[in-house]
Formats: sequence, structure tokens, C-alpha cells
Amino acid sequence: MPRIVRHPEVRRAELLAAAGRLFSARGYEAASVDDIIGEVGLSKGAFYYYFPSKDALLEALARQAAERARAELEAILAAPAMSAVEQLNAFLRRGRGTDRAAEAIATFASIFSPENIVLYHRMHRTVMTVMAPALARIIEKGRREGSMASNDPLISAELVLLLGAVTHGAVADLLAAEGADALSQAIAAFERRLAEQGLAVDRILGLPDGTARFVEPGFVAAMAAARPNRNPLGATVAAG
Amino acid sequence: MPRIVRHPEVRRAELLAAAGRLFSARGYEAASVDDIIGEVGLSKGAFYYYFPSKDALLEALARQAAERARAELEAILAAPAMSAVEQLNAFLRRGRGTDRAAEAIATFASIFSPENIVLYHRMHRTVMTVMAPALARIIEKGRREGSMASNDPLISAELVLLLGAVTHGAVADLLAAEGADALSQAIAAFERRLAEQGLAVDRILGLPDGTARFVEPGFVAAMAAARPNRNPLGATVAAG
Repeated sequence: MPRIVRHPEVRRAELLAAAGRLFSARGYEAASVDDIIGEVGLSKGAFYYYFPSKDALLEALARQAAERARAELEAILAAPAMSAVEQLNAFLRRGRGTDRAAEAIATFASIFSPENIVLYHRMHRTVMTVMAPALARIIEKGRREGSMASNDPLISAELVLLLGAVTHGAVADLLAAEGADALSQAIAAFERRLAEQGLAVDRILGLPDGTARFVEPGFVAAMAAARPNRNPLGATVAAG
Repeated sequence: MPRIVRHPEVRRAELLAAAGRLFSARGYEAASVDDIIGEVGLSKGAFYYYFPSKDALLEALARQAAERARAELEAILAAPAMSAVEQLNAFLRRGRGTDRAAEAIATFASIFSPENIVLYHRMHRTVMTVMAPALARIIEKGRREGSMASNDPLISAELVLLLGAVTHGAVADLLAAEGADALSQAIAAFERRLAEQGLAVDRILGLPDGTARFVEPGFVAAMAAARPNRNPLGATVAAG
């Protein structure tokens, strides 16, 4: 078989993409280096040229996710015509348009599954190191503009970001719901949680209730419609 | 060696206690069933009579922690002479008196270490299923008394409980701090986070700023004084 020579950066990107797919589909522990090199068609020796370990690969994946988030955020922060409240809403709505619902539910389904706790933590921690300072800059601007109240914008930013976990159980319920009634109940429960999360963001930042709006209407229904057939969370939900 | 026959419940409690110590000290993955039975002096067959797997043992440990939390909470909830705000503060202060600082820092040091993400998640999830409904009852009472505002006490309770993670990094920094200056900075940073966490609780529940007080003054300094010699988080902090 003729060996195809690719640029090292291309190889590295291929390995990252394959690892992302396999970690999501099978879980971080279950997906082996052999599985990953099998997908890309690389020897084990070559793999270790790019990444000293599977853990280093995970770290690189997390950094890649953080860099993507940073690029999205820079675009928001670079818009001086936007008020801090407008920037806050743009920040919170990232990736939550109905056009990205399918991508969102697929990501949630893999990342919140019990097999992927380690993956979730690594991603979450790395992305937080990008998100929290960016949100802090928006809060700082809101304080200057007189719309937001905060003693410490970085801590306020972290508190706001922590609230996101209040919908994790609702994602599991949405994925597990069977039948039209159960599904519409799961959608309504999810939306109630998003509304309460928004209110909590308002109150932490000293904004009037109803200011933070971070989900396009119909987003949860669009996620429900785009549910993957495989349901890694179903068993857990049924057992709990 | 004469075989000592113990009551099954006593054996089970011994296994749980040994597993708790070993999981904390070495991490859930690293501590094996062999290690655990070695501490208790039991055969592998006997172990599997009590627990079908190491995972079942972890689940039982989490349930035990939840039951202890439930008992503490019942005492608070059963005090009808306390207002909802007094109950809230009693709830939030559980285990955070200076007399329990040594126990708290030892628990934090093990449970927030990178090796113990799975352990932390299991404990957190199980304890949350006890905590959130109990806190919801306090918020419901506060709503009846007119002191608290909430559209949905259970979701509000979950939002309040999620804020606790805002001090996880501060625990790591406290454990890693070397020298008197670094240590007093770590204590001050930790206390600033606790104060902001308290304000966020107030605001989510519609209470006047400064109402929620969930740490006895001097608690963080007492935790710092009681730091264990072994420092499982140090390396991570230095690398981050």
C-alpha cells in the first residue's frame, strides 16, 4: 500500500477529530489509542510522535474547544456598539440558536453521559478558563455603564457560568422521554429550568428580572426533534 | 489464625469505612477490591457477598453520605420555631463550624483531587438528591412567610446548591499555598469567594444582601491551619 504523506499539522488535526468522535461515541475510558490510530490509519509509534499519551490528546481536545469558544467570544467583545447587556445575551446565546439544536443535543448526549465524566470535567475546566475572564469583561463594562452590579466581576462570571448545570438533568430527561406526552413534559420542564436560570443570572448581576435571554424560543423543541437514536443516558435515567 | 465471626451489618460497615479511607487516599480507580479486603481481613468471595462490584460499594458510600446529610437536615426542618431565613443559615452552615475545619479540609483535599472526579460526581449527585428537596422546603416556607421569592422552590434550591463549586479552585489554592504571604492571600481569596457566593444566594432568593451567612468567621483560617501534609492537588495547581 502506498504511504500517503501528510503535513504534520493535518495529521494532528485528523487525530484530534477522530479522538473527539470516538471519545464521544464510546466514552473516554473505552476508546483506546488503537481505536484512534485505526480510524486515521497511523502506526502507534507515529501516534506517540504527536501525543505522548491519551491524556495529552484529551488535553489538546479541551484546548481546541476552548480556542473555538475564545474566537466566538472575541467577536462579541470586539463589538463596541453593543451595550454590556447586549453582549451578555450574545454571550449566553452562543450555540443555542434553533439552527444549532442538532449539534447541541448530540454534544450534550455524549458529554453528560456517565461514561464521560472525566471528558466532561476536562472540557468544562478548560473552557471555563476562557469563558470566565471573557464574561468578566462584559460584567466590568456593565458596571461602567451602570447596568450591572458586581463586587468582583470574575467571581460573578464564575457564579453565572456554574448555573448552567441546572439543566443537565433536563437534558437526560429529554433524551430518555418516550411518547408524545412525556416528550412535551420534558420540553416544558427544560424550558422552566432555562427561565429560572435566566432569572438567577439577572439577580446575581443586579439586572431587572427578564433581562438575560439566552435561548432562542423553540430551541428545546428543536433539540427534542433532533434527538439521536442512540440514547446513552436512557438506562441511567430509568434506573434513577 | 482463628476466624472472628462478626455480624453482617458490622462487616458491611467496616467495608464501607475502609473503602471510604482508601478511595480518599488513593483515588477511586487506584484503590482495588484487594486493597479494601486486605484492610478488613476478608476473602474476595466474602466481599462479593456484601457488594456485587466496586461500583456498588461506591454507590453505597454515596447513599451513606446522603443519609447522614438527611439526618442533619431533618433536625433543622423539624424546628418550627426557626424562621425560614434561620433554617437557611443553619442549612448552609452544616459542617462549616471551626470545630469541623480539619474534617472539612481533609474531605475537600481528597474529593476535589483530579483522581477522584468519579467519586466526587457520585457523591455530589446522590447528596444533591437529598439536599435539594430539603432546601426547597425551606424556600417554600420562606415564600409563605413572605421573606423569600421563588417561582419554583426546587429549581431555586438546585441553583443555590450549584454555587458551591465557586470555591473548589480556592480549596486547591489553599492546599497548595507555600509560605505565610501566599497562605494569607489564599485565605483572603477564599473568603472573598464565600462572601460573593452568599450574596448570590441572597439575590437568587430575593433576600436583602448580607442575609445568607453560611460560614463561621475564622473557618477558612482554621481549615488552613489543619491542612494535611500530603497535598494531592499541589501538582495540578502548579501545572495550571
